[in-house]
Formats: sequence, C-alpha cells, structure tokens
Amino acid sequence: MVPMQSTENGFRGPVDGQQTPRFAGIKTFMRLPAGELPADARVAILGVPFDTASSYRTGSRFGPEAVRSISSLLRPFHPVHRVDLAAVPAADVGDAPVVPGNVVETARRVQAFLEPLVATGAVPLVIGGDHSITLASLRALRARHGRLSLVQFDSHGDTWDEYFGERYTHGTTFRRAVEEDLIDPRASIQVGLRGSLYQERDAALSTDLGFEVLPARELLALDVEAFRARVAARVGENPLFVSFDIDFVDPSCAPATGTPEVGGPTSAHALELLRALAGLRLAGADCVEISPAYDGPGQITALLGATVVWELMALAALRAGVPTTADVS
Amino acid sequence: MVPMQSTENGFRGPVDGQQTPRFAGIKTFMRLPAGELPADARVAILGVPFDTASSYRTGSRFGPEAVRSISSLLRPFHPVHRVDLAAVPAADVGDAPVVPGNVVETARRVQAFLEPLVATGAVPLVIGGDHSITLASLRALRARHGRLSLVQFDSHGDTWDEYFGERYTHGTTFRRAVEEDLIDPRASIQVGLRGSLYQERDAALSTDLGFEVLPARELLALDVEAFRARVAARVGENPLFVSFDIDFVDPSCAPATGTPEVGGPTSAHALELLRALAGLRLAGADCVEISPAYDGPGQITALLGATVVWELMALAALRAGVPTTADVS
Amino acid sequence: MVPMQSTENGFRGPVDGQQTPRFAGIKTFMRLPAGELPADARVAILGVPFDTASSYRTGSRFGPEAVRSISSLLRPFHPVHRVDLAAVPAADVGDAPVVPGNVVETARRVQAFLEPLVATGAVPLVIGGDHSITLASLRALRARHGRLSLVQFDSHGDTWDEYFGERYTHGTTFRRAVEEDLIDPRASIQVGLRGSLYQERDAALSTDLGFEVLPARELLALDVEAFRARVAARVGENPLFVSFDIDFVDPSCAPATGTPEVGGPTSAHALELLRALAGLRLAGADCVEISPAYDGPGQITALLGATVVWELMALAALRAGVPTTADVS
Amino acid sequence: MVPMQSTENGFRGPVDGQQTPRFAGIKTFMRLPAGELPADARVAILGVPFDTASSYRTGSRFGPEAVRSISSLLRPFHPVHRVDLAAVPAADVGDAPVVPGNVVETARRVQAFLEPLVATGAVPLVIGGDHSITLASLRALRARHGRLSLVQFDSHGDTWDEYFGERYTHGTTFRRAVEEDLIDPRASIQVGLRGSLYQERDAALSTDLGFEVLPARELLALDVEAFRARVAARVGENPLFVSFDIDFVDPSCAPATGTPEVGGPTSAHALELLRALAGLRLAGADCVEISPAYDGPGQITALLGATVVWELMALAALRAGVPTTADVS
Amino acid sequence: MVPMQSTENGFRGPVDGQQTPRFAGIKTFMRLPAGELPADARVAILGVPFDTASSYRTGSRFGPEAVRSISSLLRPFHPVHRVDLAAVPAADVGDAPVVPGNVVETARRVQAFLEPLVATGAVPLVIGGDHSITLASLRALRARHGRLSLVQFDSHGDTWDEYFGERYTHGTTFRRAVEEDLIDPRASIQVGLRGSLYQERDAALSTDLGFEVLPARELLALDVEAFRARVAARVGENPLFVSFDIDFVDPSCAPATGTPEVGGPTSAHALELLRALAGLRLAGADCVEISPAYDGPGQITALLGATVVWELMALAALRAGVPTTADVS
Amino acid sequence: MVPMQSTENGFRGPVDGQQTPRFAGIKTFMRLPAGELPADARVAILGVPFDTASSYRTGSRFGPEAVRSISSLLRPFHPVHRVDLAAVPAADVGDAPVVPGNVVETARRVQAFLEPLVATGAVPLVIGGDHSITLASLRALRARHGRLSLVQFDSHGDTWDEYFGERYTHGTTFRRAVEEDLIDPRASIQVGLRGSLYQERDAALSTDLGFEVLPARELLALDVEAFRARVAARVGENPLFVSFDIDFVDPSCAPATGTPEVGGPTSAHALELLRALAGLRLAGADCVEISPAYDGPGQITALLGATVVWELMALAALRAGVPTTADVS
Repeated sequence: MVPMQSTENGFRGPVDGQQTPRFAGIKTFMRLPAGELPADARVAILGVPFDTASSYRTGSRFGPEAVRSISSLLRPFHPVHRVDLAAVPAADVGDAPVVPGNVVETARRVQAFLEPLVATGAVPLVIGGDHSITLASLRALRARHGRLSLVQFDSHGDTWDEYFGERYTHGTTFRRAVEEDLIDPRASIQVGLRGSLYQERDAALSTDLGFEVLPARELLALDVEAFRARVAARVGENPLFVSFDIDFVDPSCAPATGTPEVGGPTSAHALELLRALAGLRLAGADCVEISPAYDGPGQITALLGATVVWELMALAALRAGVPTTADVS
Repeated sequence: MVPMQSTENGFRGPVDGQQTPRFAGIKTFMRLPAGELPADARVAILGVPFDTASSYRTGSRFGPEAVRSISSLLRPFHPVHRVDLAAVPAADVGDAPVVPGNVVETARRVQAFLEPLVATGAVPLVIGGDHSITLASLRALRARHGRLSLVQFDSHGDTWDEYFGERYTHGTTFRRAVEEDLIDPRASIQVGLRGSLYQERDAALSTDLGFEVLPARELLALDVEAFRARVAARVGENPLFVSFDIDFVDPSCAPATGTPEVGGPTSAHALELLRALAGLRLAGADCVEISPAYDGPGQITALLGATVVWELMALAALRAGVPTTADVS
Repeated sequence: MVPMQSTENGFRGPVDGQQTPRFAGIKTFMRLPAGELPADARVAILGVPFDTASSYRTGSRFGPEAVRSISSLLRPFHPVHRVDLAAVPAADVGDAPVVPGNVVETARRVQAFLEPLVATGAVPLVIGGDHSITLASLRALRARHGRLSLVQFDSHGDTWDEYFGERYTHGTTFRRAVEEDLIDPRASIQVGLRGSLYQERDAALSTDLGFEVLPARELLALDVEAFRARVAARVGENPLFVSFDIDFVDPSCAPATGTPEVGGPTSAHALELLRALAGLRLAGADCVEISPAYDGPGQITALLGATVVWELMALAALRAGVPTTADVS
Repeated sequence: MVPMQSTENGFRGPVDGQQTPRFAGIKTFMRLPAGELPADARVAILGVPFDTASSYRTGSRFGPEAVRSISSLLRPFHPVHRVDLAAVPAADVGDAPVVPGNVVETARRVQAFLEPLVATGAVPLVIGGDHSITLASLRALRARHGRLSLVQFDSHGDTWDEYFGERYTHGTTFRRAVEEDLIDPRASIQVGLRGSLYQERDAALSTDLGFEVLPARELLALDVEAFRARVAARVGENPLFVSFDIDFVDPSCAPATGTPEVGGPTSAHALELLRALAGLRLAGADCVEISPAYDGPGQITALLGATVVWELMALAALRAGVPTTADVS
Repeated sequence: MVPMQSTENGFRGPVDGQQTPRFAGIKTFMRLPAGELPADARVAILGVPFDTASSYRTGSRFGPEAVRSISSLLRPFHPVHRVDLAAVPAADVGDAPVVPGNVVETARRVQAFLEPLVATGAVPLVIGGDHSITLASLRALRARHGRLSLVQFDSHGDTWDEYFGERYTHGTTFRRAVEEDLIDPRASIQVGLRGSLYQERDAALSTDLGFEVLPARELLALDVEAFRARVAARVGENPLFVSFDIDFVDPSCAPATGTPEVGGPTSAHALELLRALAGLRLAGADCVEISPAYDGPGQITALLGATVVWELMALAALRAGVPTTADVS
Repeated sequence: MVPMQSTENGFRGPVDGQQTPRFAGIKTFMRLPAGELPADARVAILGVPFDTASSYRTGSRFGPEAVRSISSLLRPFHPVHRVDLAAVPAADVGDAPVVPGNVVETARRVQAFLEPLVATGAVPLVIGGDHSITLASLRALRARHGRLSLVQFDSHGDTWDEYFGERYTHGTTFRRAVEEDLIDPRASIQVGLRGSLYQERDAALSTDLGFEVLPARELLALDVEAFRARVAARVGENPLFVSFDIDFVDPSCAPATGTPEVGGPTSAHALELLRALAGLRLAGADCVEISPAYDGPGQITALLGATVVWELMALAALRAGVPTTADVS
C-alpha cells in the first residue's frame, strides 16, 4: 500500500519521491503519514477548512486541500537551514471539525481538536481557512504556553472591532486575541500592512492596541538582517505564534486570496523573512486565506502556501533540536 | 449620461442595445433603470449576495453581479410569449442588505428590504445567493399573499432538518418554510431531484412533508405538455413562488454551482418548463446557487441564470396583464 | 481525528456528510477509509496515476486525485438501485505504484499491486490514468476469474496495433488484451465509438477481432431497455470487466480528456446505461482518461468520473449481495 | 522536415498521425500542407482573423488559430460518408489579409484574396472571424457561381439593418447579401434562430426579406430526415453556401462565442444536420464566431469548430466526386 | 435601497464597507454614487468601453466593467497621502458612448461626452478601453486647459504613424496628439518603454517628436526620488494628463492586456511612481488596455487597474485642495 | 498567400507586423518562414514536443505550439543589442520527430533530425519539451563542436542519477551529458538552483560532477556585471550551449511549468542575465519545460519563453557577425 503509511509501522517522514512519483497517492501534507500523531511528534499538520468569516471572496475552506495537493512537490531536506524534515516525527492529522456558517462554534471545536495535540508538545502548523481560525489556535496554545508573542505577516492588521455588527470575522481576530489576553501585543509585530483604509483612524488600530507595525513600504526598504534584529528584539524568548496571511505577498505571487492588496513583497522576499525567524521559540503557526478557486491553473498561491508551511516546519524542527548539518559542520 | 437612467425621468425599460452597445454602462439587470422602484412597478429585480449557508462550494455572494453582467446580452422582446419587457414598469433595486456569516440576521434584513417592495404589488425576482435566501422571500410574500404554492426546480429537495447542528442552511430551507406555514406543500411540487442520498429515508423527506416530487429521471421522460398539466393541477389558482436552483440543470449546462449533480436536464429543456408556467399566479421568484468562480470564461451558468430571470420576468409580465401580441393576433 | 478513519477501528463506510462537512478532510474516494483493505471487503478503490501512453493530451496522472477530490460530494445511498454503499465493506487503498515514462514496467507493477487485492475477492475499481492501464487490471483478474467479458464505453475502440512503433499505448490496449487471451471478444461489446478515422480499415479493427461494436450514432437511437438486452445477451454469465473511458460522453459533459470526440451521449444518458448493467457478474471496472488540467473550474469531468465510479460501486454491491431496499419491498 | 510538407513535393493530404504524433508540428488545419493551392485542388482552407464587427464579445480574430490547433485531432477518414479526405487535393492557404478596425476594407481584401482561389474551382472553407466576413466569401463566389443559396446555422438571423449607425457589422451581413443580390433568399434557409429580440418586428426581419426560417424550438422537434427534405426542397440544385455560426449550438457545447444564446441544439445534433446536406451543390462554406478566450481549457468550442470544418470538407469531397466506399459497396 | 445612492440625496463618497459588505450592490467605481455629476464635483469617473483600435488582443471593451467590479475592494482613505477620498465630491458617470468598429466616430462621441464634464472643473478619470481613447480626453481637456503635459506610463511609445494603413489605432495616439497640438512633447515624458521593435528607427519615434523617454531598463535602476525630480522638471506647472497603460508593468503583474511586454516594473514600484506625481497640476488621467478575458480568476490586472485609478483620484484630490491629515499634522 | 512565405522566394525574416496584423497567419516562431533551412542560415528554430520524461506535471509537448503562438508578438529589432533579426537568415523548421512514451528512441530521432541542421553551421534554438530533450541537442552539437560549455538557467541541477529506476528523465540529463563527455562541467555553470531537496547530499550532486553552481539566493544578490564576469571566466572561448529551463524564474512569472519552485528571479532579471552572455561562442540553445495547460489565459509563461528564444536568437546573431548599429555608431 504505497502512499498511506500508517504511523504504527514505524514509518517516519514523507514517502520517498525518487522511489514513488510525487504526484501519486492520497494527498497528505508533503506525503507525511496521515492519522494519529506519533507519541514523540514534534510537528502536527492540520487543516481548518473554514471561510464563513470572510468579508469579500470566500472559498478558503478548500485551502487545506489545495495546499496538501501541491505540497507533494516539496522534498524533505531544507538546504538553507540544512535540516532534514524526514527526521522530524510528524503527521498530517487531517482537518479539524468545523461548522460552516458558525464562526463561534467552529472556533470552539477547533480549539477542542487542538488541545490534545498541543498537550503532546508538538508544534501545530495550521493550514487555513480564513484568518478567523487563528483565534482557536491562540486559545489552545495559551493554555499551555501562556501569553504568546505574535509575528503576523499580513497586508491587513485584522484589528477592527466588528464588521456589519459581527465581532468574530477574519478582520477582527487580533483585537479579540488581545482582549482575551492570548497574545502580548507589546512583544508582537505585524508586518506588511498596506493598502486603502476605511478611515484615517484605521491606521492606528493596531498600534493603539500595543502592536508594533512594520508597513509594507518600510519593509520593502529594509534588509533581511535588520528585519531579523527588529523582530528578535520584539519577541525575545517569548513563545511565538507566526501567522502568515497569504495576502502578505503581492497579488502577482498570491492571486488566490480573499482580500488581495496590490504592492506587497515577492515570494522570494517572504521566504527570506521566514528564514530570519530561526531561533525564536516557535509554539505554533498558521498559513491562511488561500482561496483556491481564485488561483490560476499554475496554482502558484497554493504552492507558495505549501512552501510557507514547509518553512514553518523547518523552524519548528530547528527549535525542537533536530540536528542540522550546520550544527555539525 | 448614457447607461444609468434614473427612474425619475420617465424612462421605462432597458437601454436600447441597437443604439448603445450592450456591453457598455454600469451593469444593472438587463440594463434596467437602477434605484427606486416606480410607483406602478410590476417587477422588482434584486440581488441577495449571500452564501454563508452553503454546505459545499461557496461564492454565490457574487451571483447577482455575474447575472447582472451577462444579462446585458438579453433583449426585451420575448418571442415565445410575444411580450415586450420594455413595456413592463420595473427597476433593478440593487442588492438587499446581508450580513456575511450570519444566516438568521441576513434573513431578517432581506425580509425587511423586501416588504415595502412587495407592498407595492410588484413581483420580486431575486437573484441569489444560496438557497437559504428563499426563506426571506417567502416570509415577505406570505404577509401579503397568504400561504404560497411552490414550484421548485432543483436537484435537491432542501428539506433536511439540519446540517452540522445548524437549522438554517441552504439544505433545510423548505422544511423551515413548511414549519413556518409559509407554503402549502400540498399545492407545491419539487422538480428535478436526483443524485446520491445520505441515507434511504432522505428519499421521503419531501413527500413526508406533503410535497409532490417529480424526480429528474421521471421528468426526462415527460413531455412538456404533461408537465404543464401536472403543475397546473397541483398549483391551481394559488399565489405562486417559483424557486429555480441552477443545479436543476445538468453540470454541463451549469458548472458554476455549489452542489452540482450529474444527470439533469439541458438548458433548452429548462426554459421550456419555465414557459409552461404561463398563466399561473406568480407572486415572486428567485434564481439561486450561481457561484461564478466555478464558471468557465464562457460564463454559461451566469448566462443561463440571467435567461431564467428573463423568463421569470416574462411570466410576471403575462400575469400582470401586459398586452402581448399573442393577445392581439 | 475526523477524516482518516483507520480500518482497524471497525469503522465502515464513508464519513457522515451531515455531521462533518463534505469538503473537510484528507481526500479519499467518497471519504472512505484509507489504507489496508478489510478482510471482508467487497470493493477496493485504487488509482493508477499514469499517462505516459497518451497519444495527444497528457495529464491523466492527476485523474485519481481529481476524482477523489470531487467525490466527497457523493453520498452513500443510491436511490435508483436502493442500495446503501455505507454498508459495503470497502477501502480506498491509494494509488498503485507506477513508473512515469515506462508503460511496460508500470503495467507489471500495477498488476502486482492488484493481485493480492483481487485474491481477497474484492472487486477492484480503478481510477485512471490513461487507457493503457486497463491491461494490468485484466491481467490480474484473468488469473482469478478466467477469460473476461468486456463492456467498454469509449469513443474509440483502442484496438490499433501500434502507434509510432510502440505496441503498448492507450490506443492498443484491447488488441493486446485479445492477443493475451485476457478477454473474450465474442462475449464483449464496445459502445459509443465515433469520430474520424485514420483510414477506412480502422472501422473494422474491433469487429475483425471479434468484438461487437455499438457506435454512438446507433446508441443515440436506442432505448435503454434495448441496450440492456443487447449487452446482457452478449455478456451472459461471464465475469465482466467494465471499462469506462470518459471520452465516451460528449466533450460538453467531459471536456477534460486526452482525445475528445464531438457527438457523444450526455452524462444523464451514460448513467442510465451503467445502471442497465445491474445483475451482470462484475469482476472489476475502471474509469479512465480524465485529465484534470483540461477541466474548467466547475470540474464537471472529474465529477462525472466520480459519479461513474459510484455507479460502478453500486453494481459491485448489488452483485455482492448487499441487501437493497428493492429486495425487501 | 516532418510537419510542413510543401505542396511541391507531391505530398497530398494530412500528415499520418500514426507515424508522427498529432500534436507535433506547425499547426495547419488538420495537418494539411500549407501554402500554395495545388492546381487540382478541390478544397482551400483559409482563415479570416477578424472581429471588428462584433457587437458584444470580441476575440474571434484568434478563431482560425484555435481551430487549426485542435484540428490536429482530426483524422482523414469520414466513417459516415465513407470518404477519405486524405485523397482530396487540398491545402491550408493561411489567413486572408485583414485590417483590424476597418470592416469595409477588410471585406475588400478578403474578397481579393478569395477570387483566385475560387477561380481554380476549389471550394473555399473559411474559418472566422466574426460573421461579417461571410460577405466577402459571398461576393467572391457570386462572380463565379451566380446567385447562391444559403443554409445558415445560427441563433440569430443577422438581418438587422444597422447597429449604432454602422451598416457593416456581424448582425447585418445577410441583409447586405440580399441587397447586393449575392444570395437568393427564396432558395435559402436560416436554421436555429432563438432568443430574446430587441423588438417584436425583429421576428420578421428575415422572412420579410424572403428567407425561410426554421427556429430552434421547431428544429428540436424535427427529425433529421424531415430536416434533410425541407432543406433539399428549398435549395434544390442551386450553388450553395453553408454558413455555420458556432452560436447555433447551445452554450454548453460552444461557450466561446460572441453572442451566446441559451437553448440550442447539441453538438451531436448539429453534426447530423450537416451530414444531411450531402448531395447539395456546395460552392463554399464557413464556420464563424469562435472566440477562443472564452473557451475553457478543454477547448470544446474550437474542437466543435474544427469538426464542423471537417464535416464541410467531407461535403465538398462528396460533391467533387471523390470516390467513397459507399459508392463501391 | 442600499447600493445605488442617487447624487440628489446629498450622499457623498462611497458606501461604507464596514456597514454593507463590499461585494454587495450594483458595481460602480469604488461604490461611488452613479449618475449625474454633483455641481461641485472634483472628480468624474467614467469608462470608455472600446477596443476596435487594438492591434493584437482585443477585449478591453470589458475593461471598465472589470475595474468597477474589483474596485469595491478599495477603501476611501489613502494612508500615504493621508487624504480621505470619501470627502471628495465625485461620481461614477457611467460609460461614454462608443461605436464599436469605428475609431473616429467613437473619439468624436467620447469627446462630446467629456466636454460638459470638463467644463464643470472636475478632473476626468477614464477607465479604458484601448489606448486610442486617450485622444478624445486630450481633445476635450485641450479646449479648457490649453496644451497639456503628458506623463505616459507604457511599455510602448504609441507614436507610430499608422498600422495597416490606418492612422487612428492604439499605437498611433500620441503622434496624432502632437500633430493636433494637444500636448507639448517638450514638457512630456514617456516612462517604461521596452521590448522588441519593428525596426531600428522605431527607437527614435518618440524622441524625434520631442518627447523625453525613460526606458524600462533605466527606470528600474532609478530611485523614486530621482524619478520624481526628473518628471517634475519636465512637467513644471503645466496642466498634466497622466496616461497609464497597464502594460507598463510586467506581465506577471498585469497579464490581461493587449500587447504585453516582458521585463517591466512590479506593481509596488508602479504605485510608488504614481505617488511621486503628487503636487503636479493634474487635469485628467486614464488607465487603459485592461482586457479582462486574459486575466486569471484572481483578477490581478483589474485590481491593479482599480488601484491605479484610486491613486489617480488621490492625486486629483490633493490637487483640488482636499485637506489631508498631512497638512494638519 | 500572406503568412507562409516559402524560403524559395527569397523572403528573409519575419512577416512585417505593420503591414499584416501579427495575430494573422499560420503560427511559426516569430512569423519566420517555415520549412527548409536556407543554405546560409545562421539560426534554425525547431520544436521538440516531448514530455514523457517529466516527473511531475506533464504537458510540455504543447510547449512549442504555445511559444510559436505568442511569439507573433515579437518584433525583429533588438533595442539593447541593436541587432535586426530580420536580417538573420533563419527558418522555423518545424518539430523534430518524437515518440511519445519512449525517451531513448525520441532522443535518437531528435539527434538525427538535428545533425543535418547543425552541419549547415546554423545555431539550433530548440523549444521544448521537457528537459530530457537537451541531451539530443548536446549529442548533435558535440559531433561538430567538440565538448561544450553549458550555461544552465534552472531551479534544479538535473544531475540526479535516476528516478524510479529510470536513467533517462528530465532530472538526470546533465549527469548523462557529463558521462557521455558531451559537456565540460569545469567550463560550465548552473544558475538559479533552489528549493527543497530529497536529501542533503543532493546539494553536492552538481558540484561533485565538476559544475560551478550559482544558487538563486546568491544570484539575487549579485549584480549583472558580476554575473557576466563570472560566467565569462568559466566559459571562456568554448563553444557554448545555453539551456534555459523556464522554472528558473519565479512561479509568479512562469506558472506553467512542470516542477515550479518558489523564490526565483523575475523575468526582467532573467532577460538581463541572458543579455550578459553576448560575446560568448553560442553553438546552440534551448528553452524548455513550458507546460501550457498550466498557464493562465494571459499566457505569460509562453510569452516569456518566446522572449527567451528571441534573446537567444539575438545572441546567435551577434555571434554570427550580423552587423549591429552598435558596431557602427
């Protein structure tokens, strides 16, 4: 039975793409084993197929599937960090339960799904779904790690108070997170904000809550080392949640998203920024707002999303002490 | 100012496509005047851009826009009924207010938007949106017309009790409508049902409520005259609501829908069935479940949807006593 | 862990789509359990992601994935046969091993993968892949069942001798099958042939081998009962392999295929023809030549393919003696 | 040099698709030789890449390319007429010269390009381009053959007088053709008309000019033999021009066209109607209004267009006395 | 009536996207009021849906619709210029009248449509349409403002003399504009030229007319401040027309255009260049050559076009003396 | 006969796009004459429509067609090198013969097709096809030029030993080329490598063979002059083969490829790198791995591919001593 190694048989890591074609098999993230998390797991991959909280384009409920599909292109060794993800105990545990049409109940169920995973010590890497789903991750991680630092890559701050009278939407997540004391805005940073605003005071929504904001225009002029230093100074030794909204990058690199904003960084730039987070205390992460119906046939948004999750997995591996060649050499 | 005739200036009917290209101008349904309904209006076109209640593919929030866009291809004279829609006082009153993510509140707001329109005596023709939105129309019409007959073209009965614990979804609309006494199932008929079921008892969900069901297989073997007689016998002189779910037709004719079912009738067949409703007491109608992100570049689903609304408008005109050439000749 | 029920836990049949949204979870065919086949399995679903033998458009290596993806729309109860597929012991065993670029070696490996499945008595239902892959199924089934009858739905006979000097291609499969004595052409029928030919003698390629041929033009004029009688007379009590090339239907219903031919039957017609095979001794079946890159965003070809496999599964269930309501009532 | 046989080397007919893959080579229609017409040519294939006269969607300037591209799927033997197109002296002479933006000048240049081709006695088969281009063909053929009969497959009559003040558009072609005495409307028939009209009198535009009109609704109820008789009675022994607007068929079969109309016949039906023209005196033909940017990735409209030209080529071959097996047997 | 505020009711600025979802309502540019221009209007948005003058891909007649559609994503406050566009008296006056197929007559009608708008003192912002339409704007503005400066963002100079014998095409606009003395080439600059040429002398076509040319290669090496200085020096206090051909940016950022050229700047770069024009005397502007049929489902070209118009509107607002926070702070 | 100039009539260079629209005519590369190579040819353009050796997405068999199609946008004068390609004796000789499904036999036939072309002294420019096809070119050129230098633009080194047991795939080409002594790795360089690896030792596969490797991350930090120097030092006066795998650029610029890798250079950057090769002794080149089914409607990958071939043609012209204006001025 080629592609669906159960975790019971001792198999670790993804199927070997030089023995079995990468396009073959039931699609799990990066061809990882599916199902129960191994007892010593360092990473748990899961999807949250939910898009009810989207204010413009919907469809990110199909994001986890699209990311899994194209993720079979990814190979396990990371040449920059020099870490072998095939050596990381991990599984794709499937999708968390959701209730389409009900934001609040979905958050509750996702949190309940996450808690036993988090309890194992594994780092959860969540594939969204719209940005409302991050709240469930933050709640589940808060219980174990305490208040988290947030590094949010996004073209929007998502710190509005409500939308159309609704308090739980993909644009209000981080105000709720601060109100619920899940994250410490003073040890957090939002990166890549840009684009038109509803009104002038929106520019200060995040900073008034205590977040540091690094707008896209400023980011584009900053070198990666300076970025690394600035984030490290902000986050320090706090447990960290990285939330990567795919609309952080320019629409030319990620057309398939709910509320695209012209003028963002390239994909190459984004990957470098993620790599600059090596060494921080990653507790969990997500990649959200991929809406596959808006991707072209080349599926570049889904491929970028899968690559982002692969980068996050490398960060988790580094943090978990998986030996790297860099350590050795 | 070519394309946006205000209704104040006495203009009636759509812009003339032989004077001004049909592709030009801000897109209203069939290039009708936009805005306030004329006092003597017979028809009110409106959109309900809502898709929170969808159980599979979302995106029908963009249905009204797509239908308006392609509807500029439609010309005002109906050659079968021989009725000139340019002579029908009507307007495209825009979209009803919705709250993305909140099915119940949306239904409330849509109903409130519809009530004054219905009070004028105009027939509302609603462009969806997912099938949950029909409930608002039925509520608004019930107040004026009493209990309605329903002719529902659909591959699904939409009479489940709940989905994932939610009672208001696009698959439970007509059970709710019966429970709220909005429609009389014994004077109603569901046409075109087909496809796989969750369990055997699903086959009787609608008939147990009192609906007559004409499954797709039976429909495909029925000639149009027999269909006409069967529906007329069922509906009689009751005020009628026609609900046309675009998944009634085969996916080859309507790929862009939330829950497509293989094995339906063609578009040509569907139009004939609609024409067979001439003479019934149309109180209102809708065309729902068009999800444009799943249409190909040829936009055939949106075009079919626009043509369905055009057929419904002709039915409304006939009912309203607009003179037809057929009457004269 | 919602979507990936292991077969060890006693779970039978697909995930309940009214409890967990159908779009959620790792995609197996119809949300069946993935992995090892249960000991009492009646049906084994598998993919063969292979397209090296295609003479025109390639890409059917992604056919199994696309069919699995959209198959989550399918519910387990079949309302025409009145059989509950949730009661059929079955699994999606993943994809057979293939060697891209090597037709002969792939056939060998697929056969080896199939043999233990066939040995359990389960009916294999194969999702292609190009039409060359059928040879492996026929070889594996021949060993257990003896010479098979073939009912082939296809716009081409696939009985050429070679292509560009190659003997194993998707256009030569059934000549090879006759030469290898896998099937009995005199108890077999090819249905739906049409379109342009290379030369006049191509018209007799299949009949010269002994096949009965029912061309598309003739089929379109035949009622379903006559079709049922004709096939039943041909096949009798032989063990049967049904091979459904998606190009059997018209390109309007199945655009995403390697060598489309204008002028075929509709999807609704095709489903009726499949249902007419109830009662024959189904030993195995496949649905091939779905090339997803050529599908539009509505994915109608993949949906048709999934529905065909669902119909085939119902035929297998009927044959396996799964009780139907029809039996009872 | 595989794919571009020059006509000088005695090569006749298309490249053999069983020796060289059909997808290979520079794309000419059906892989025919490109360039100068052989002295004894029976058929000349040419494109007219022009769309300035389109009233809605443009883009049919890319129609000839799309039809040539997919036409490589076509094989030379016609199994219904039993005629081998490889035995028909023919060439793809490329595209006629056009002037984008100038309808009148284009018609002049296309006519000049056609005249020497027509003078050789070859039947020109034109791939459009919008429907305005037919006027050039009719003018060129009128000079040689006298007044022509027209069989027009179309959802529109194209007999309006003007559009936006312009007299030469794709909607006015056949009124101009009658005014210029190019065709005899009393020996001509328009088949497939349907859809909404600007005003009531539009219904009589064609019949007032003398055309017989067979609307789509009537056509759908007519069997092919009756159609054959009706057309034969109308056309008789007149030299015939067949003009096939791809919007004749339903949008599900031909989404990629300028002004689609819901409710047309299927592709299978259309091919049968074309075959029913066998025996009429074909002088020329065209297939127009294919606008490839509106086709899905499956390119079904282009494939239908190519198949229509192939059917027209078979009609030309039959008329030219190319021996058929049917004659022999 | 939510989305179509008439201008009579005192409403100013776009619908509030936090009260009513941005995707709802009849699509006007940025949800501005549609119809008559307010007496004190600073900006008039209009479309010119015309593509007859295109030399390669057509379809920009659907450009205004696509830009309006996606423009609902735009919010009114501009965070860089700190100006609130909701405070700018403005309307979307619909589309100018055009005559498909007739370049000269269209220019005449568009000019006539523009003249009363220009007479009010409003800055017209035109959504194209192909680049031929700029001539009408320049003619209408010349009458009020005298000879204009031009800042043209474009990969082509559009200063050829003729195409296929036609003098009015999208490639000859600015030669005509100089000949008609509408613009002063010595106070004008063309930015972004690149790509292959017909012949060597084409490189000097614009400079020979007196334009300054800043080719793409040079631009890519220039910082924004240097660009600002160079343009300011060239334009000075002249009334300015900004013409933004969407093919200025790289095809990865704007695939949906008529004659794409590889090797252009990114969208982020383009927005910065537009912002650098703040303070110049903007008299009018356009954004042209968006051909939506060539956009992917993500619609990134249309979104860029809408964002460009939003940037141009901000420039108009700044020039009109709308107070900015920057002024205050 | 406008578009298919035979080479016999003395015509040289492409059709004039200002006399005949560029979209018209049978599609050859850049509208060059098709067929026999002129005796004094400097450049031979050919396609190799082959994709059997692809490890992930297939479909590059349609690459040559797609590149030819969009190449009609290219004009003959190169403004950077100041060379007129219309003055370069050249032809599009069509596609080399291939055997779908057979990598080894295809390489043999392509080599045989190339050898007489190479013997004329013309520089072959090959449009792929997957990267396995380069081996045939190297073999054909080796015979005439001796061991070649290679400059390979690619995100992968393609120096694996085998895939699924197959030794001839698109991922093993350059290991085979070294083993066959076709190229000198010590005078060769691979540029742009990046992305995930199967295992750590993959990072050294190319360098162990002797290649210099310039990874994407390093390249992105290098200015073009430094690149030029580095390549020139490596290659020197050796005869050079340039192999451009379209996945060298970022997926945002080239989505339509078999194994895309996030994080590559832009198209603008890539063109500059190609221009930096001016002066090297170009013996042959190819542009491979364009898989058109994965392009969006804007066809940006195909356009980039065509532009790359145009750049390569300019390099060939420079090398062949075609006079440039730069020489004169």
